[in-house]
Amino acid sequence: MHSIWKSYPKLKRELTQTKQLMTKTLRIKNKAVESAVLEMLNQGGKMLRPAYQLLFSEFGTPDADKKIALAAAIEMLHTATLIHDDIVDKSTTRRGLPSIAHQFGEDVAVYAGDYLFVTTFKLMANYTDSLKSLQLHSDSMEKILDGELGQMNFRYNLKQTAADYLSNISGKTAELFSLSCAIGAIESSTSHLLASQARDIGKNVGIAFQIIDDYLDYTQTEQVIGKPVLEDMKQGVYSLPLLLALETKLVTLAPILNKREAMTDYDATRVEKIIRETNALDKTKEIALEYTNQALKIIQKLPKNAENTKQTLNDITTQLIERIR
Amino acid sequence: MHSIWKSYPKLKRELTQTKQLMTKTLRIKNKAVESAVLEMLNQGGKMLRPAYQLLFSEFGTPDADKKIALAAAIEMLHTATLIHDDIVDKSTTRRGLPSIAHQFGEDVAVYAGDYLFVTTFKLMANYTDSLKSLQLHSDSMEKILDGELGQMNFRYNLKQTAADYLSNISGKTAELFSLSCAIGAIESSTSHLLASQARDIGKNVGIAFQIIDDYLDYTQTEQVIGKPVLEDMKQGVYSLPLLLALETKLVTLAPILNKREAMTDYDATRVEKIIRETNALDKTKEIALEYTNQALKIIQKLPKNAENTKQTLNDITTQLIERIR
Repeated sequence: MHSIWKSYPKLKRELTQTKQLMTKTLRIKNKAVESAVLEMLNQGGKMLRPAYQLLFSEFGTPDADKKIALAAAIEMLHTATLIHDDIVDKSTTRRGLPSIAHQFGEDVAVYAGDYLFVTTFKLMANYTDSLKSLQLHSDSMEKILDGELGQMNFRYNLKQTAADYLSNISGKTAELFSLSCAIGAIESSTSHLLASQARDIGKNVGIAFQIIDDYLDYTQTEQVIGKPVLEDMKQGVYSLPLLLALETKLVTLAPILNKREAMTDYDATRVEKIIRETNALDKTKEIALEYTNQALKIIQKLPKNAENTKQTLNDITTQLIERIR
Repeated sequence: MHSIWKSYPKLKRELTQTKQLMTKTLRIKNKAVESAVLEMLNQGGKMLRPAYQLLFSEFGTPDADKKIALAAAIEMLHTATLIHDDIVDKSTTRRGLPSIAHQFGEDVAVYAGDYLFVTTFKLMANYTDSLKSLQLHSDSMEKILDGELGQMNFRYNLKQTAADYLSNISGKTAELFSLSCAIGAIESSTSHLLASQARDIGKNVGIAFQIIDDYLDYTQTEQVIGKPVLEDMKQGVYSLPLLLALETKLVTLAPILNKREAMTDYDATRVEKIIRETNALDKTKEIALEYTNQALKIIQKLPKNAENTKQTLNDITTQLIERIR
């Protein structure tokens, strides 16, 4: 289990149970694919989404089996989207391992992702008591995929703004965080107010998380991040630091970015250098901090409980932003 | 609407409503993708699965809105699998139109299929009264995908048997027919016996349907079928006529099939000629007829109702096999 959870023994234990349930649930006839997906589920991955979900369930009266099953469902859904994202982005690695698409081919990756999607719904349908969460789940998933398809409209678009980016990541990343928090609350029968606060906190944490990830793409080397920023640029996927730099350096950056698939490592270094000459990275950090603070503000409004969950949420959310401070 | 329904005005009207609901439900930000998926939903496609579902609902007390929504869910699920299958099979056409993967790229096709998967679950979650159908749905989907992944194990395998093939198509095709029939019955509160008969009928119809399709691949030209058999051979996907021919002509066929991706149109013609020299096509027809007869036998056991649904089921199922008689 990731070191981020070491100070939270109960949560850590529950996340371990979540992993065990995922492993138990996954049964694919094609054993090579099964073991690759299992490796992906067990390796890396901080399990942030199930962690937030489990924490929000503490504000109600959670059922022990159900909360683990729903946490597993969320992490499997997340893994499904990663497997399909790696086809779309042509990523060769994921969490330091070869991506499923790279290792087994895109055809296997299509079905392996589909399989995990279905397992998600299966776990949900078998463990939830009401249709409400399933409706919420499918609404969120619809937003996520509509966001992904919407984002494709922006590929290679040098005129997209920071606002476009924020709207895209609201669908792409933040929706799943928001869903995790909301389901944690709803399925343990918290008040409506708490469920709505959970949703808002998740949204802000999710946006901050994606911005932090995109920031780190520019400041850490490939070995640490796993997914190279050059690939994104080649495919016309531009994240916040680059979009902010484009506001002042369009004329300099356009000829390099317009090389598209033909961009080289050297081109990527040049783009990175130009970004560093602007204040885009500082601004990116600031925006991530704003969303984090917004999340922390709502966390402060949560009620106190015996487990001091409020404090845990505060600490974890703060730790996420500290990766870039 | 397909001409197969012209003698069944009520069913035809309900299938038209099903199409209208699918069109209304589909909302994708990327408008080019939206219109391509809409075209695919509206063009071609006999809508067999929703038809069987709607017919089985007549044995209970169906709710008008619900039955249309569940029929739309089944057809969308089917369309989702087609979009993803076309990535895997590298098919350039589908129902006489360019496939989504071919027209917009595999990346768009991945998310477009995912989007339809989610819409399926959304419709189910919003219209079903109980979690039971959703559990059934996700169990079936799991079998279908496990079947697809399992089938990949058999690629280029010249030693797979007719039994392997039947086991694969039981998952790949028959499960969805079986699910359609079962959900039609269950969601309109028929007896347990009827729901179980529905499931068995769907299974047999589905197996017969896939065998008939595979038979037609060898006896009709590409213009009529849409999906060339050569592509399947190149990718090592061998269907019943070829597998039956391999039982006696392994030595002759192996060197041609082992060319794999390098197989030419001429090679495909040679394989077809060898198949015709055996009794493989007749045997294939016989096996399809056996499954059809099995379905018809269970249909005979169904109760009579005012709409004479039993007769309609009998006639439609008979029409399917008549395509190859």
